[in-house]
Amino acid sequence: MVKLIALYKRPSEPEDFDGHFDAVHLPLLRAYPGLRRLELTRVEGAPLGEARYRVMVELYFDDRMAMDAALASPEGKAVTRDLMAFAAPLVTVFHGAVEPGAL
Amino acid sequence: MVKLIALYKRPSEPEDFDGHFDAVHLPLLRAYPGLRRLELTRVEGAPLGEARYRVMVELYFDDRMAMDAALASPEGKAVTRDLMAFAAPLVTVFHGAVEPGAL
Repeated sequence: MVKLIALYKRPSEPEDFDGHFDAVHLPLLRAYPGLRRLELTRVEGAPLGEARYRVMVELYFDDRMAMDAALASPEGKAVTRDLMAFAAPLVTVFHGAVEPGAL
Repeated sequence: MVKLIALYKRPSEPEDFDGHFDAVHLPLLRAYPGLRRLELTRVEGAPLGEARYRVMVELYFDDRMAMDAALASPEGKAVTRDLMAFAAPLVTVFHGAVEPGAL
């Protein structure tokens, strides 16, 4: 299993950001072909100091090939277009292999 | 459900870092009282450019109270001590509420 992770810094207008994220961006994410699971975390704080993030979204795919195909699909391009339009300066995107949990 | 997320930047000596992480830090994390799930992601890349992270670990707890109790426990203090000793300049820690997935 692999996942694509998008981590969003706290925006200057959190309510506007959340509104667009929930109403527009999230439905686009859910349309990724081959998506196995989506997990959304609303960031609330940090053990030390303040959290600099607002939200994290994790998209699970069977393997790297499925993820790459999703990113290259028309649905994936719609995600990227929307992301660049509403959150380009806020978002960091990376991906990795999920290790089978021993717990 | 809440989770505590630790995101580690790429270290200058990745093999040394991974060795300590896997052999020492991970067993300490698994000892957190009240831990419901641990997910470990080995970061492999980014859709655009290079990923600046090496690993992400996510620790799931029933609720905020359980997470706070884990952090304050002797096991939690052992985690923090080890973290500060081997990865203080690399790690970012934050927590948030996991939304029930619609997928």
